[in-house]
Amino acid sequence: MKAFVTGGAGFIGSNLVDRLLSLNHDVVVYDNLSTGRLEFLEEASTHGQFRFIQGDLLDPDTLRKAMEGSNFVFHLSANADVRFGTDHPEKDLQQNTIATFNVLEAMRANSVQKIAFSSTGSIYGEAPVIPTPEDCALPVQTSLYGASKLACEGLISAYCEGFGMQGWIFRFVSILGERYTHGHVFDFYKKLRDNPNELFILGDGHQKKSYLYVQDCLDAILTATEKAQEAVNIFNLGTDEYIQVTQSVGFITRHLGLQPELKFAGGERGWIGDNPFIFLDCSKIRRLGSSPRFTIEKGIIKTLKWLQENAWVLEKRESL
Amino acid sequence: MKAFVTGGAGFIGSNLVDRLLSLNHDVVVYDNLSTGRLEFLEEASTHGQFRFIQGDLLDPDTLRKAMEGSNFVFHLSANADVRFGTDHPEKDLQQNTIATFNVLEAMRANSVQKIAFSSTGSIYGEAPVIPTPEDCALPVQTSLYGASKLACEGLISAYCEGFGMQGWIFRFVSILGERYTHGHVFDFYKKLRDNPNELFILGDGHQKKSYLYVQDCLDAILTATEKAQEAVNIFNLGTDEYIQVTQSVGFITRHLGLQPELKFAGGERGWIGDNPFIFLDCSKIRRLGSSPRFTIEKGIIKTLKWLQENAWVLEKRESL
Repeated sequence: MKAFVTGGAGFIGSNLVDRLLSLNHDVVVYDNLSTGRLEFLEEASTHGQFRFIQGDLLDPDTLRKAMEGSNFVFHLSANADVRFGTDHPEKDLQQNTIATFNVLEAMRANSVQKIAFSSTGSIYGEAPVIPTPEDCALPVQTSLYGASKLACEGLISAYCEGFGMQGWIFRFVSILGERYTHGHVFDFYKKLRDNPNELFILGDGHQKKSYLYVQDCLDAILTATEKAQEAVNIFNLGTDEYIQVTQSVGFITRHLGLQPELKFAGGERGWIGDNPFIFLDCSKIRRLGSSPRFTIEKGIIKTLKWLQENAWVLEKRESL
Repeated sequence: MKAFVTGGAGFIGSNLVDRLLSLNHDVVVYDNLSTGRLEFLEEASTHGQFRFIQGDLLDPDTLRKAMEGSNFVFHLSANADVRFGTDHPEKDLQQNTIATFNVLEAMRANSVQKIAFSSTGSIYGEAPVIPTPEDCALPVQTSLYGASKLACEGLISAYCEGFGMQGWIFRFVSILGERYTHGHVFDFYKKLRDNPNELFILGDGHQKKSYLYVQDCLDAILTATEKAQEAVNIFNLGTDEYIQVTQSVGFITRHLGLQPELKFAGGERGWIGDNPFIFLDCSKIRRLGSSPRFTIEKGIIKTLKWLQENAWVLEKRESL
C-alpha cells in the first residue's frame, strides 16, 4: 500500500503512520503542523519508506501534487475540537467539510480510489437509542463539529457512488493513548499538575462517555479496511463499556495519588452541544473479529503514563 | 413578518414571495439571477412591501447588509440540479453548503432567529423503507446534491442548538406548478415541442417518484412554520401517491394530444446517483392538518398549461 495520511503528525495519525510502516507500507504524511507535532514522527522519519510533506488541506494545488503516486488515503486531519465550535463556526466548515472536499478532489485528480475517514460518534447528536448503532434514526445535529463530520461522510459516500471510489468511515468515541494531546484526561492532568488540591469539572460529572485506546482503534481500522469491501463501509469504533466523568476522575487521581477537592460547573452538559451520554453499539466491527484489548481504565492509565513521561506536550508551543 | 427570501426570483421562491405579500408580510428577495427570473417578480415588484436585492450568497458582506432588519429567513436558493453533480462537484459544495453557512452567519450578525430551509428527499439516498419517514435509518448519500443538502440541514440544526435559533427543514419531493423551469416535465415538454414524434427517456421508465404542486408546498411550509415550534422542525413534503415515469409521460402526451414513439436509455437509474424510487411518508405534516389539494396528475397538467402560456421560459437566455 502507498498510504497518504492527512493529519499524520497528529495523535491518531502518527500512531497509524508507525503501524503502517511496521507493516511495510509506504507512507506519505501531509500535515500543516497546526496541531500536529514533528516529534511524533521522529521514529517514522528514520524509515526509508516514509516521507513528510508540510502542507494545508485548504491549499488544493499542493495537496494534489503531494498525493501523486499514493493509492490509499487515510484522512485523519480535522478540527477535532468539538467544544469550541460556536466560538468560530467557520473552523469546522473549512478544516473539516471543505478540507475533505479538497481531499476527494485530489483523489479524483490522482485516480486514488480508496479512503478511510475518521468520523465521530458526535454525528449521532443526542441519540434516542443507546448503545447507538450505525443505522440509528437520522439524527438532528447538536454541534458544529458533528454537523461538519456528517457533511464529510456525505461527501465521501457521494464520491464513492459517483466516481467509483471505496470508502471506510469510522465513527470514533474519544480515543486515548500515547501522543494524546487534547481531551478530558489531558485537561484534568494538566489542571492537577498546576494545582493538585482542586479540580474544576465542566458539567455535573454525570456525563457518560465511552473511550477507546488508540492501538485498539488502529486494529479496528486495519481489520475493516481489509475485510469490509462494500463501496461504503461504516463502522462505530469504541469499547463495549462507558464511564461517568467522576469515575474517570477517580482513575486519574488514584493513579496520580491525589485527593483534590472536586468543583463542578453544574448542568447536564459540559458545554453547548455536549452530549451527556455517548455509547456506541460496536457489534458491526465485532462481527469482523475486532475487539479492544484494553478497558477504558487501562486506556486512561496508559495515557497518563505517557503524559507523565512527555511533559513537553503540556507546554504552550511557540507559534510556528 | 419581515421575510428575507433567498432564491426569491426562482420557481418556488417567487411563488412564496407572492404568497407572503398577499398575507401582508414585508419581503426582501436576495437572488443572483443565475437561474432566477425577474419576470417572476413582476407582480411582486408593484407591491410597496417588496424589495429586490441582486446579490450572491457567496458574497457574505452584501448578504449581511441585505439581511438587516429582517426577522425570518426563507432559504430557498440552491444548486437544485441533482443530475449533474459529478460534472462539477464544487457547485453543490459552494452553492448549497457554503452558501447556507453564509446565510446562517448573516443571521447571526443580524440577530435573525428563524430560518425555513428547502431540503430534499434526496438526502434519504436509496431508502430501505418506503414511504420514507423523517426518522428513517441514517442514510448513505448517493448524490452530491443530497450530500450537500444534508450538510445544510446539519449546519442549520447545529446553529439552532448553538445559537438559540429556530429552524424548519422541509424535505421536498419534486415540486411542480407555475414558474417551473427545470425537471422532467420541463424536459419532456421541451423535447416534444422540438419533435412531437419521439421522446427520449433516461433510464427504463420505471423509476417511481412523487411530486407536489407548488401551492400545496407553500401551504405546508406556512402551516409548519406557524404550528411546529420545536427548536428544529423537520418535515417531509410530498403527496401520498407516486407515479412511474411512463405514467407521467402518459399524462403529458395525453394533455398535448401527442403519440410520440418512446425511446428509453435503459437502466434502473436515470443518471448516476439517481434514486429509482422516491416516496416520502408525509404523516408528520398531515398531523398538523396540511394535505395537498392537487394530485400529481393535476400538478403536471397545471405545469404544462403554464409552460404552454409562457413559452419564453423555454428559450435559452442570454448570459447576464
